[in-house]
Amino acid sequence: MDNKCLVILSGGQDSTTCLAIAKSKFKEVHAVTFNYGQRHLTEIESAIKIAEKLNLTSHEIIDLGQGILKGSSPLVSNNELGVYKSVNELPGGVEPTFVYGRNILFLTIAANRAAVMGINDIFIGVCEADYAGYFDCRLDFINVMSKALGEGVYGSPDAFKIHTPLMSLTKSESVILAKELLGDKFDSVMELTHTCYAGVKGGCGQCHACLIRDRGFKDAGMIDPIWKFRNAPVFS
Amino acid sequence: MDNKCLVILSGGQDSTTCLAIAKSKFKEVHAVTFNYGQRHLTEIESAIKIAEKLNLTSHEIIDLGQGILKGSSPLVSNNELGVYKSVNELPGGVEPTFVYGRNILFLTIAANRAAVMGINDIFIGVCEADYAGYFDCRLDFINVMSKALGEGVYGSPDAFKIHTPLMSLTKSESVILAKELLGDKFDSVMELTHTCYAGVKGGCGQCHACLIRDRGFKDAGMIDPIWKFRNAPVFS
Repeated sequence: MDNKCLVILSGGQDSTTCLAIAKSKFKEVHAVTFNYGQRHLTEIESAIKIAEKLNLTSHEIIDLGQGILKGSSPLVSNNELGVYKSVNELPGGVEPTFVYGRNILFLTIAANRAAVMGINDIFIGVCEADYAGYFDCRLDFINVMSKALGEGVYGSPDAFKIHTPLMSLTKSESVILAKELLGDKFDSVMELTHTCYAGVKGGCGQCHACLIRDRGFKDAGMIDPIWKFRNAPVFS
Repeated sequence: MDNKCLVILSGGQDSTTCLAIAKSKFKEVHAVTFNYGQRHLTEIESAIKIAEKLNLTSHEIIDLGQGILKGSSPLVSNNELGVYKSVNELPGGVEPTFVYGRNILFLTIAANRAAVMGINDIFIGVCEADYAGYFDCRLDFINVMSKALGEGVYGSPDAFKIHTPLMSLTKSESVILAKELLGDKFDSVMELTHTCYAGVKGGCGQCHACLIRDRGFKDAGMIDPIWKFRNAPVFS
């Protein structure tokens, strides 16, 4: 088993699955969660509860300043969030929720903390399969960003290893993997995760993030424990 | 003349020289200055005055949150600053003032603002000649970081051009270039710049940054306008 690693934990389904994977491979698992002026603090509260539940070595909430990332994304502005009837209705191309540079920023600050703690392995739950035009979720980006961090922090392009274990998984494969790793804890951990862009406990069921998550659980033939908090029927 | 660009302006000598270069090449020059919890706000005040003096199209001070970068550098902690008698006494290797990921962070936020403003050209005043072991000042870093930003923001590695016009200049060459570009304004602009790590107006003359700046002006055979604020004799 390797020594120690750092996980970027948003409090969502993917980063929580990433955390479970990291816990299966590293003795010490540290996590960081970012407050970057996102509309909903629900996901930060989720991250705190998940970190406690999974007994991490350390968990830091890092306040990035409210205006640090600008743009028209509803995640960092007052613009309206897209609402859809089904996953087939999702627009192609770059989703309007894309925030320029968000994962670049997260990885940069994570590399700073990793360097301070003497950690070289960083986990991020990005996924190319469902990337919605978020360019900073793609493998090409991760590969070059890893080299940029190594060069910038240590003058060595291979100093950091950025682990992206979900990169090529579908959402249903990711759900199944989380179940395998978390076992009996699956429901009680997944119940704590927050995915919905609209900030609705249990999920609004109509935003991009909810539709993708719902489809993942349905395709896996599993019940999402957050559905019990949802008023609207999930299977239509 | 090209259209518009964004300059990372710290308020120091190098970023101010960079700004003068950018002004000679672009019609619209925008600037960003970062408050990242550095010990001295003097340099931010300098940046504001310089931006006004040089009549920039826009200038944004971005508050990055006080604990965003951690480390043992005296620039972001209460650790003691190194004080030296001469430039020959400066330690080799990585200076203790190095902040892990600082320029990575600055370029990331600059790319976010550039994307919002439809700008592809970003200037940063890094310099390999005097890099003091700051790995994020080297060309190898800039080249790979440029690709990371392009991939992460636009899915295209060449979307941004990071201009580093001081990269291979000595400090004295940089002083001479600033004089050529600023002409009559040279003294009144350079007088506003702040370089000293100790936050002393006119420079303490004993920190790494002061020693390098002093040597640059001496080698160029020029008088640094900030010297008039300094109590200690400069030429020893």
